[in-house]
Amino acid sequence: MAALRHGGLRPLIQAGKRLSTPFAAAPRLSLSQSVTRSLSASSARMSSSFYPGEPEAPVLNTAIPGPKAQEKIAELDKVFDTRSLNMIADYTQSFGNYFVDPDGNKLLDVYAQIASIPLGYNNPALVKAAQTPEMIDAIVNRPALGNFPSHNWASILETGILKVAPKGLNQVFTAMAGSDANETAYKAAFMWRRMKERGGPNVEFTEEEMQSSMNNQLPGASQLSIMSFKTAFHGRLFGSLSTTRSKPIHKLDIPAFDWPQATFPLLKYPLEEHVEENEKAEAASIAEVEDLIKNYHIPPCAVIVEPIQSEGGDNHASPAFFRKLREVTAKHNVLLIVDEVQTGVGATGKFWAHDHWDLPSPPDMVTFSKKAQTAGYYFGNPELRPNKPYRQFNTWMGDPARCLLFRAIIDEVQRLDLVANTAKVGDYLYGKLEALAKKYPEEFKNLRGKNRGTFIAFDNPNRDQFIAKVKKLGVNIGGSGANAVRLRPMLIFEKQHADILLETLEKAVTSA
Amino acid sequence: MAALRHGGLRPLIQAGKRLSTPFAAAPRLSLSQSVTRSLSASSARMSSSFYPGEPEAPVLNTAIPGPKAQEKIAELDKVFDTRSLNMIADYTQSFGNYFVDPDGNKLLDVYAQIASIPLGYNNPALVKAAQTPEMIDAIVNRPALGNFPSHNWASILETGILKVAPKGLNQVFTAMAGSDANETAYKAAFMWRRMKERGGPNVEFTEEEMQSSMNNQLPGASQLSIMSFKTAFHGRLFGSLSTTRSKPIHKLDIPAFDWPQATFPLLKYPLEEHVEENEKAEAASIAEVEDLIKNYHIPPCAVIVEPIQSEGGDNHASPAFFRKLREVTAKHNVLLIVDEVQTGVGATGKFWAHDHWDLPSPPDMVTFSKKAQTAGYYFGNPELRPNKPYRQFNTWMGDPARCLLFRAIIDEVQRLDLVANTAKVGDYLYGKLEALAKKYPEEFKNLRGKNRGTFIAFDNPNRDQFIAKVKKLGVNIGGSGANAVRLRPMLIFEKQHADILLETLEKAVTSA
Repeated sequence: MAALRHGGLRPLIQAGKRLSTPFAAAPRLSLSQSVTRSLSASSARMSSSFYPGEPEAPVLNTAIPGPKAQEKIAELDKVFDTRSLNMIADYTQSFGNYFVDPDGNKLLDVYAQIASIPLGYNNPALVKAAQTPEMIDAIVNRPALGNFPSHNWASILETGILKVAPKGLNQVFTAMAGSDANETAYKAAFMWRRMKERGGPNVEFTEEEMQSSMNNQLPGASQLSIMSFKTAFHGRLFGSLSTTRSKPIHKLDIPAFDWPQATFPLLKYPLEEHVEENEKAEAASIAEVEDLIKNYHIPPCAVIVEPIQSEGGDNHASPAFFRKLREVTAKHNVLLIVDEVQTGVGATGKFWAHDHWDLPSPPDMVTFSKKAQTAGYYFGNPELRPNKPYRQFNTWMGDPARCLLFRAIIDEVQRLDLVANTAKVGDYLYGKLEALAKKYPEEFKNLRGKNRGTFIAFDNPNRDQFIAKVKKLGVNIGGSGANAVRLRPMLIFEKQHADILLETLEKAVTSA
Repeated sequence: MAALRHGGLRPLIQAGKRLSTPFAAAPRLSLSQSVTRSLSASSARMSSSFYPGEPEAPVLNTAIPGPKAQEKIAELDKVFDTRSLNMIADYTQSFGNYFVDPDGNKLLDVYAQIASIPLGYNNPALVKAAQTPEMIDAIVNRPALGNFPSHNWASILETGILKVAPKGLNQVFTAMAGSDANETAYKAAFMWRRMKERGGPNVEFTEEEMQSSMNNQLPGASQLSIMSFKTAFHGRLFGSLSTTRSKPIHKLDIPAFDWPQATFPLLKYPLEEHVEENEKAEAASIAEVEDLIKNYHIPPCAVIVEPIQSEGGDNHASPAFFRKLREVTAKHNVLLIVDEVQTGVGATGKFWAHDHWDLPSPPDMVTFSKKAQTAGYYFGNPELRPNKPYRQFNTWMGDPARCLLFRAIIDEVQRLDLVANTAKVGDYLYGKLEALAKKYPEEFKNLRGKNRGTFIAFDNPNRDQFIAKVKKLGVNIGGSGANAVRLRPMLIFEKQHADILLETLEKAVTSA
C-alpha cells in the first residue's frame, strides 16, 4: 500500500481562534488519493452528509504508530501506563467518523472510544455547546448538587437527561461514569428492600442497626445481594466488579461480594435455524434466575442485566426473554436494573435498547453513561428515593458540564433523526455482512445484531490478528469477549461509511 | 435586620456574550449598604485583593430561601431529591468568596461546595481556561484514555497534576471523584500484595485463581482488607464505604466488607494542656494498628488515613503520629494511602497536608479530588502499576477537561502564592478564634487547626442552630461529625473576609 501524503484536513478549532459558524467553516476535503480507492476504484466516495468536512476515506501516511506517535508514546509512558494503548490520537485534527493520529494517519473509527462518542469528533453542534456561557459556568462553578444546586439545574435535567428518560421513569440520580451509576443504583435497591422489610419508610433504624453498620456487620450492613449474569460487565469498582463476570483479568486479586450469577442464554446463530434450542436456553436461564432468587444464601434484591452483553462478547437474548425476566423479578419483589451504559443513546436503532422488548411494565432502574457523556440512573418509583436525606449523596453527584453536553447531543440526535439513521444504516450493514458471512463463513461466524441498529458483532477465530489487519487498512475496530469483533460506530455512521468498512473487512480476509 | 435591595453585581458571564478581558470587566461594587456594616460600622471593608469585583460584604434581600428560590426549589423537587438542599444558588451572579441566590442574597461562602471550590466563583483565570481551544477539544472529544490517549495527554499531566505531585510520587492514575480515586488505589494495593505473595510480577495466575475469581471466590478474589480509622470518611461506593466510618446514615443497609478499623486518637484541646494524655492516645492507636495488621482475620494490605478527618468532625493527630504510622506500615509491608481528597490543594497552609509531617519516606499513594476539580491517586513505586495491562482500567479513566481546569488552578495558586496566603490568613483567623474561645468557651469548644492554614474547626453544643443563625447573618458555613463547625474557605479568603466571618460568629453567639 502506498504511503500517502496527509491531505491537510483543516482543524475545526485552531490555536487562538474559535469558529462562530462551525458548519460553514469545516471545508470539504479534496484528497488527491485515498487508501480505500485502491480497494474499490469504481465506487464514488462521499463524506458525512450530516456534517460536511469529513475525509472521504481513510488515509495512511505511515505505519501505526508512525515516528511522531512513537515519540508521543515514549513521552507518555514515563508518567502513565501505556500498555493498553491502541493508538495515540490528535483529536484536534479529527473530524466526524475519522480520527487522526500525530503522523496524519486518518482512520475510519468504528470503535468510537469504546462506544462512547455519539456524534463524531469535533462535532460543530457540540463545539458550539462547549462555548456557551452556561457551559463555562458549569465548568468553573462546579456545585455540590445535593446541597447547593444551581438555579438552572432543574432546567438542565428537564431539557436534557429527562427529555429522553425511558418510559415510566421520570426521576434521575446523576453520577460520573458507568461504574458509579450502577453502584448507586445498587445502593438504592438495598435501601428499598430493607425499607420494605422494616415495614415502610417511617420505621426508624434500630440502635443495633446503627451501631453494627459502623462495624460493617449485620444487621446494619445488610446481607443482601445483586444478581447478575455470567459474562456480564457492569464496571470495575468493588460493588460493580462483584457483578461483572467478563474476564479474570478484570477481577483477579480484588475482594468481591459473594453474590449470585445466573447463566445468560447462549444463543446459537443463525437464530432461525436454532429456534427450539434457543428457546430452551432462555427458559433454562429464567428458571435459574428464579431458583437463585428463591434459594441463594444471600438473597438478591435486584437483578442487573445488559440488553446486549457488550464487553462479554455481544451476547443477545430475545425480547421474550427480557419480558419473562421482568415478570419473574416483579413476581418475587426483586428489582430489575437495566444497564444501558453501552447500549443506550441510539446505537441499537432505538434510543434505549430495552425499547425493543415491549415490556409489560418498565424496568425499575435504567443506568446510562458512555454516549451520554455523563452518567446516572433513571427511576420512576418514588420509593427508590431513600427514606431519609444523605443516604444517597456525595459531594458532586455528577457533573453539570457533562449534563449540558448530553443535552446538546440529544438535541442533535433529534434534529437529525439519528436513531432512525442508525436503524437504517444498521439494516444495510447487517444485510451486507450476512452476504459476507455466506462467502467467508469461518471469518464471519455467529453474525448477530439483526434489527439492532449498528450494534452488530461476529466471531472470528483469529480475532486479534484480524482487527490488527483491519487497522492497517485504515479502519479502527474493537473486540469483545473471547472471539467477537464488535462494531460500535457513531450515530452519524452512514451507508458510505458502511461500504468502506465492508470493503475493508473483506480485504482483511482475502489479503495475505 | 433590614432587607436590602440587591446591589446589582454585574455577572462576569452574560448571556450570549463572553469577556475577552475578564479582569477588567468585573466592576467594583458600590453597595449603598451592607448587612455586616451593622455589625461593625467602624471597620472599613475591602473586597478581594486577588480578583477585583467581589462584594464588600454580605447582602441580604430576603429570608433564605426567598420567594424566587422557593419557586426554583419546588421546580427541582419534581425531578431531583431536594431533602439535603441547603440553598439554591445562582452561580452566574456569584463572584469570588461570595455566592448569590436567585433572590439576590449574597453570602460570604466559608463552606465552598463542601471544600471543593479553590479560587472563588467565576474566577477570571478559570473562565479564561474554560474558553481555550484545548478545553473545548477536551469537552467534545472525550477519549478512552487507556486505549486512545490524546497527543497532549502527557503534557496535560506534566504541566498540571504531576507538577504538584507529592514528593517521591511521580506517577498518577486519574479518576473522576474521591470515591473512585480511593477505590482504584485500593485495587492497586490488592494487586500489589498478591503479586508479592505470588513471588513477583512474572509469576502467572493459576487456572484455579482465574476460575475462582469469576465466581467471586478465593483464591482468585483475594481475602485481604483495607484498614481505616474510626470516624474516617473515604467515600460512598462499596469499597470506599467499607472504609468509611463517619455516620450510620452513610452506611445503613449497604453490604460491606469485613475490614478492620483502628481507633483514631481522640486528642484533647487545648493541646498544650493535654500533652501526655494525647501522646498516650496516639501511642495506643499505633499499637492497635500494629495489632490489627498482625492479627486481623482478613489481613490488611493497606492502611488509608486522612491527614485531618474531615467529614468525621475535623479530628487531628500530630505529625509524630503519622510518622509512626508510616514506620509501622512500612515495617509490616503494608501500604500507606493518604486520602487528601478534602485536605489537599493548599487549604492547610501546605499544598498537601501531609507535607506538615516530615515523613521518613513518602506515603505509597496519595489520593486527591475536590479542590483539584478532578481526581486520582499519585504513586511512586513502579510495582504499583499492576503486572499486566487492563487490570487497572476503565473506559474514560478520568476527564481531561477537569484535568485542564486543575492545571489552571495550579497556575493561579503559584502565581498568587495562595498557599502562603492560606497559611497567613489561617494564622490570623486562628488567633482571633482563640480570643473568641476565651470569651465564649461553651460556643467555641475544642478549637483546632493551629498552623493548618484555614482548615480550622471548633465544637458548638447547638451546632445546627448556630450554623443556621450564621447563615441568616450572611455567612455560609458547614458542619461535620456530631458537633463540629468546620471552616472551609477558599484559597482566596483574606484577612478582610476573616473579619466578616469573626464578627458574624460573635454576633451569632450574642444575638438572641
